[in-house]
Amino acid sequence: MMLHRLFKPNKWNPDLLQNRLLLWNSQRNCSKKPKKVYPKKIFSGIQPTGTMHLGNYAGAIKNWVDLQNKGEDVIWSIVDMHSITLPYNPSELKENVFKLTATLLACGIDPEKSILFQQSSIPMHAELSWIFACLATMPRLSHQPQFKEKSEKLKDVPLGLYIYPILQTADILLYKATHVPVGDDQLQHIQLSAHLAQKFNSTYGETFPMPQAILNSTGRIKSLRDPTEKMSKSSNNVKSRIDLSDTPDILLNKIKKAVTDFKSEVTYEPDSRPGVANLINIHSLISGKTPDEICTQAQNLDTGKYKLLLADLVIEKLNPIRKRINEYLQDYNYLQQVLKIGASKAETIAMTNWLEVRNKVGYGVDTLTSNVHKLNLKS
Amino acid sequence: MMLHRLFKPNKWNPDLLQNRLLLWNSQRNCSKKPKKVYPKKIFSGIQPTGTMHLGNYAGAIKNWVDLQNKGEDVIWSIVDMHSITLPYNPSELKENVFKLTATLLACGIDPEKSILFQQSSIPMHAELSWIFACLATMPRLSHQPQFKEKSEKLKDVPLGLYIYPILQTADILLYKATHVPVGDDQLQHIQLSAHLAQKFNSTYGETFPMPQAILNSTGRIKSLRDPTEKMSKSSNNVKSRIDLSDTPDILLNKIKKAVTDFKSEVTYEPDSRPGVANLINIHSLISGKTPDEICTQAQNLDTGKYKLLLADLVIEKLNPIRKRINEYLQDYNYLQQVLKIGASKAETIAMTNWLEVRNKVGYGVDTLTSNVHKLNLKS
Repeated sequence: MMLHRLFKPNKWNPDLLQNRLLLWNSQRNCSKKPKKVYPKKIFSGIQPTGTMHLGNYAGAIKNWVDLQNKGEDVIWSIVDMHSITLPYNPSELKENVFKLTATLLACGIDPEKSILFQQSSIPMHAELSWIFACLATMPRLSHQPQFKEKSEKLKDVPLGLYIYPILQTADILLYKATHVPVGDDQLQHIQLSAHLAQKFNSTYGETFPMPQAILNSTGRIKSLRDPTEKMSKSSNNVKSRIDLSDTPDILLNKIKKAVTDFKSEVTYEPDSRPGVANLINIHSLISGKTPDEICTQAQNLDTGKYKLLLADLVIEKLNPIRKRINEYLQDYNYLQQVLKIGASKAETIAMTNWLEVRNKVGYGVDTLTSNVHKLNLKS
Repeated sequence: MMLHRLFKPNKWNPDLLQNRLLLWNSQRNCSKKPKKVYPKKIFSGIQPTGTMHLGNYAGAIKNWVDLQNKGEDVIWSIVDMHSITLPYNPSELKENVFKLTATLLACGIDPEKSILFQQSSIPMHAELSWIFACLATMPRLSHQPQFKEKSEKLKDVPLGLYIYPILQTADILLYKATHVPVGDDQLQHIQLSAHLAQKFNSTYGETFPMPQAILNSTGRIKSLRDPTEKMSKSSNNVKSRIDLSDTPDILLNKIKKAVTDFKSEVTYEPDSRPGVANLINIHSLISGKTPDEICTQAQNLDTGKYKLLLADLVIEKLNPIRKRINEYLQDYNYLQQVLKIGASKAETIAMTNWLEVRNKVGYGVDTLTSNVHKLNLKS
């Protein structure tokens, strides 16, 4: 299941990607002087844009929980600053930060083991971002494939769409993160971050690690209605996705109506039978079994019956998550407390690194007062 | 002396500029619903780039002191974040912040009457800047004349050069400033700020005033070596400018060697005799007399003798300033204290406005901790 999309929609080429990663890592390693070794620290961010679906779970959340439970040093950010680059609803944004917090906790993020915080509560993301903006060049940003793709469709391109990889770089490097779990569509952004880390180091002295991407090895979950497309929040058809908040009835219904094909056997042939393969990928995600094991197990079932079996498993997995999400959402104060504690922990790391940066870039720290940004929350 | 350069180097056209300002103000005033009235508040910034010269004094500092002494509500920022958009020396930057503070105090800025602070000590400049970046569009920024002019000469255009008008907008609006004293080359940036204020207001609800430029009515001081160019820090010839830190000997020498022409009378003819007119403008700046009064007073002098008279006046004006600059520079703790107190005052205003913005854009304030950004200055 080492499947990755390599910058071109609907083209899978795991070998090419692997070569590219090897080449990139070897280039990084053959620089002349030995590099400073930074302690392993993992950072990633997720946008608070409404209910999470199984694609988000497979693509990010499950991976985060696994890394946390392996005992890695992990920082997860709810990146609300990234959610304002395109038109949005402010009151929904605020609500979604809390919904996402509830979801992450329900899926197994443990605030004792992970630092979980809301990006906009740490001012240094924006402050460090300005410094990287001054180190970046316009040609480099203009060639980012994500920007090219997204801006093509727009007339008046919002500036935020152009410069958000710079904020992303600040997000990562503010914590001196060495590893960043991302989808393959974000690989070039991590390369930009590594480039800017190196540029900062050569301009101001060794300060930042060159972060590297941790690519998710889980196959990307596809739309239930069109298995050539990825499962997506932006689809108008709610039946195309499995939301983590779906009730058992809805889950059963969606899986029963998932598009497959005219053959009734359960076989894993992603190219010729993408619908069935998508169901098997979901099964694999939830059970931890390989597609081969699943096919063997289902060899006496037709796809109709197999869907019922899968629905049972999905319900068994998601029903407790849905219930926990709802419980957390009842306890607003607890969620607030989790984010506050997370912000405090993130702030401690961020401030140490930020003071180092301030000294190196020549802002200094002499004019900072102990009251600056001590918030008097009157509201 | 209502002379202004209108976006084209070396072309003066005060009428055109005045018409443009009138048109702009009338357009602003004919919107349908009556606008909220904001209390008058003046904000301006100056870059800490080395010793200040008489052109800086005429173009900004004198005006700031006058506005302060008129009892206006004024905020002056040493905008160090703007000094990193092009290559620079970090340790010089740090030193220059203190040099500029000493200079401003020596010229009459009174920390009891003005809020004087270092921009980078207030994190909300960068934070608010991100929000305006998401409201701005790329075409609008690409058409800023300053950007076009500066970027033409560069191959790899730094991103900071492109987006600094956005940071400038945040600088102004973070304090809800209504008036911004600027040089005429900054007029289009203030128009951009007004545009973004309006865009924020129409997106998130009435929040910001539409700031307007206060254009300096003092004639621009020119190079002593080439009176068709403005007096500039970036000139390689130190004799082209009068630095506020010049000793009497140096001042006398520079003024004696100022380029004039082959006529010996003292007349004010800026177009045909720019060198002499420049000396008269310097005289006018320092004495408060009009060019006509000065010419009458100097009618029996040739330009050689007039230079000696002018040198005396300049020395009389600048010598005490130079001495005070040096005194302040001996007292690093005092300068630090001035900037800390300024930062505290600026922070109080900035934080109130920032919490309002956070609520409006949907970041909320619920996850901010009272410890976030309370600085533990270990360094």
